[in-house]
Amino acid sequence: MTSTAGQVIQCRAAVAWEAGKPLVIEEVEVAPPKEKEVRLKILYTSLCHTDLYFWEAKGQTPLFPRIFGHEAGGIVESVGEGVTDLAPGDHVLPVFTGECKECAHCKHEESNLCDLLRINTERGVMISDGRSRFSMNGKPIYHFLGTSTFSEYTVIHSGCVAKINPSAPLDKVCVLSCGISTGLGAALNVAKPPRGSTVAIFGLGAVGLAAAEGARIAGASRVIGVDRNPAKFDEAKKFGITEFVNPMDYDKPVQEVIAEMTGGGVDRSIECTGNINAMISAFECVHDGWGVAVLVGVPHKEAVFKTHPINFLNERTLKGTFFGNYKPRSHLPSVVEKYMNKELEVEKFITHTVPFSEINKAFDYMLKGDGLRCIIRMDG
Amino acid sequence: MTSTAGQVIQCRAAVAWEAGKPLVIEEVEVAPPKEKEVRLKILYTSLCHTDLYFWEAKGQTPLFPRIFGHEAGGIVESVGEGVTDLAPGDHVLPVFTGECKECAHCKHEESNLCDLLRINTERGVMISDGRSRFSMNGKPIYHFLGTSTFSEYTVIHSGCVAKINPSAPLDKVCVLSCGISTGLGAALNVAKPPRGSTVAIFGLGAVGLAAAEGARIAGASRVIGVDRNPAKFDEAKKFGITEFVNPMDYDKPVQEVIAEMTGGGVDRSIECTGNINAMISAFECVHDGWGVAVLVGVPHKEAVFKTHPINFLNERTLKGTFFGNYKPRSHLPSVVEKYMNKELEVEKFITHTVPFSEINKAFDYMLKGDGLRCIIRMDG
Ligand SMILES: NC(=O)c1ccc[n+]([C@@H]2O[C@H](COP(=O)([O-])OP(=O)(O)OC[C@H]3O[C@@H](n4cnc5c(N)ncnc54)[C@H](O)[C@@H]3O)[C@@H](O)[C@H]2O)c1
Ligand SMILES: NC(=O)c1ccc[n+]([C@@H]2O[C@H](COP(=O)([O-])OP(=O)(O)OC[C@H]3O[C@@H](n4cnc5c(N)ncnc54)[C@H](O)[C@@H]3O)[C@@H](O)[C@H]2O)c1
Ligand SMILES: [Zn+2]
Ligand SMILES: [Zn+2]
Ligand SMILES: [Zn+2]
Ligand SMILES: [Zn+2]
Repeated sequence: MTSTAGQVIQCRAAVAWEAGKPLVIEEVEVAPPKEKEVRLKILYTSLCHTDLYFWEAKGQTPLFPRIFGHEAGGIVESVGEGVTDLAPGDHVLPVFTGECKECAHCKHEESNLCDLLRINTERGVMISDGRSRFSMNGKPIYHFLGTSTFSEYTVIHSGCVAKINPSAPLDKVCVLSCGISTGLGAALNVAKPPRGSTVAIFGLGAVGLAAAEGARIAGASRVIGVDRNPAKFDEAKKFGITEFVNPMDYDKPVQEVIAEMTGGGVDRSIECTGNINAMISAFECVHDGWGVAVLVGVPHKEAVFKTHPINFLNERTLKGTFFGNYKPRSHLPSVVEKYMNKELEVEKFITHTVPFSEINKAFDYMLKGDGLRCIIRMDG
Repeated sequence: MTSTAGQVIQCRAAVAWEAGKPLVIEEVEVAPPKEKEVRLKILYTSLCHTDLYFWEAKGQTPLFPRIFGHEAGGIVESVGEGVTDLAPGDHVLPVFTGECKECAHCKHEESNLCDLLRINTERGVMISDGRSRFSMNGKPIYHFLGTSTFSEYTVIHSGCVAKINPSAPLDKVCVLSCGISTGLGAALNVAKPPRGSTVAIFGLGAVGLAAAEGARIAGASRVIGVDRNPAKFDEAKKFGITEFVNPMDYDKPVQEVIAEMTGGGVDRSIECTGNINAMISAFECVHDGWGVAVLVGVPHKEAVFKTHPINFLNERTLKGTFFGNYKPRSHLPSVVEKYMNKELEVEKFITHTVPFSEINKAFDYMLKGDGLRCIIRMDG
């Protein structure tokens, strides 16, 4: 038992007081974990678009003050009642979606859409009692995605915490909590490009580049990158993308351009943009007879996917994935092992590092589209 | 060598002179097979909706006079130059789509969309020389689907002929040339329902009932039949369909009805209607996390498949199939073996038999929606 167990912890957290306004480092109080919860000491966290999106809170019901953050690495400080598989000192990755191991989804080999702990962007409180574990001067501060990692300490449902190899460097593997695993799993678990196959990646942000990394690991021979922003092409070379297509450079649909480049279409395509037109193109650019397209990007609420059904009848397959089909507790440890075995390269995703006190710089980098992942050191 | 080899054969054929008018049994001349072609003696043939559709010729460029027919069983009478894997006397099933064994599709394990011999409903002549092998008084009569089995003898590309077990009864296995294998393969090769799973079948015509037969063979525990025509339900009981849903009986979309019946959706669905709304429902009624929907029906040219992309992101899969993904020459013999092993029941699809002289009765049955398959005995 640590000396802080069972006690309220006072620590620094980056509080978002208002939509789109810089975060403020505050002293907050973090209550002890309740049943099935754990309290983590966060060592490293990184910024993902989903944080930015809910911080901007455009077209949403805003929920403030709130502590954002969901990509992170940390150490268990204490555990609540009924937590048997985690103990103080364990090295862990918190995850924005969970695995209760009891529901139909958790018991099904293929699904990671846990009924109990599935992502919920609107909830700002803990599941068990509908209350927050964060407060300042007795007033609650809302959680985000059940993780709120922009705090030195945070309380998380134990079903949303993956216990990993304690020798893995947390300042690197922290980025495996969300976007990188999403793209990697979309390739390795869902698209499954056969050795020697051709793959098109739509969207060359961190998620798309992680999908390219997955295609490389799977042994794809040709990885075509598609992005409307030509500035993305330079970074992408480090990820084995050798051919680039900018849809804006052509008068015809990009699926036709790709079909011409590949003798009828690619074997696999992975969409990582969130743009509905890219989703349709990603589907229609796969080869008839055997092509498989995978959707990863999160679309607008009103977006409609449209295609002629003959594109399916000509033996194309369309799938979607959430978090790369990884079950967070069961599978994330093995993703960390891929890094430890030097199969997976994580360093090339990390383009910036800032101390916690300068967390707003990470937002600036992302707003400018500068780099892929910015690591935030909690000790700084 | 048979005595007729290399000679023109005079025989009876049912000629369609005009769209929608009864066929007329005529004496026609059937030229010998050219390079890579074979001439078959047809013993049994059956009527499929595709024959009816092109005979009605609504909204198509009509091609008459024409000899329809593509579901059949026969014996090789003679072979053209360069045909090495078929010989006179072989028992065969002609197929409306082929397998050249040389193109990218034929060489790919998963595809049956042969570049050379893929279905072509508009061509009324042989591929090699662009001419017909049928004539009457020196005037050509058009082929249909490269098969034209409503004739005592017909000439077919050798890539569209599957050599089968000679002890298989041709009056039964002839129905495996098209619709039955299409539905069966959609289940066994594409949807692949796991043992104990739930399956929804949209459309309870011959193709849908064959899909139900496939689901039964795969070990599905619950097969739900969906059809707008309640008259279909009685026949369907013979195919292991125990629950019926008529979309017309509900105010809400049928996918919601099925989700309620099954705790969130079926594990697999197979659409065998050709109706675009049924295609969308079939996709949306599968369970999130693992559900797979398969499209089989041939849609209208202008039909558009529409759905919210979140339905994919929630880990549903949509596939289409052509001829149940069977490669005609490589795989049809094994479907015949399934019948020989008593794994597959074919008899229950055969609801009528008529002599060749009464072939128009088969059209009447189909137009009335009476029964599933009508066998036409060529010796009658
Ligand atoms: N499913 C999940 O579990 C999960 C997890 C994390 C992120 N995501 C989603 O993945 C997507 C990508 O995330 P990211 O962080 O890499 O985003 P990002 O914004 O860094 O990258 C997206 C890229 O797509 C490009 N793009 C946009 N529209 C395009 C179009 N029509 N054609 C070609 N390129 C286009 C942009 O120029 C950009 O480079 C987002 O939609 C995000 O919400 C999903
Ligand atoms: N892909 C192939 O290789 C292949 C081969 C043969 C047939 N087919 C296609 O398969 C489909 C079925 O063929 P079939 O011979 O069984 O046809 P069929 O007409 O005998 O059966 C279709 C059934 O679907 C029902 N139906 C129509 N719209 C519906 C809706 N919205 N909801 C529920 N039920 C609906 C009809 O009442 C009918 O019972 C056709 O589209 C046919 O063209 C495809
Ligand atoms: Zn994220
Ligand atoms: Zn669960
Ligand atoms: Zn047919
Ligand atoms: Zn071929």
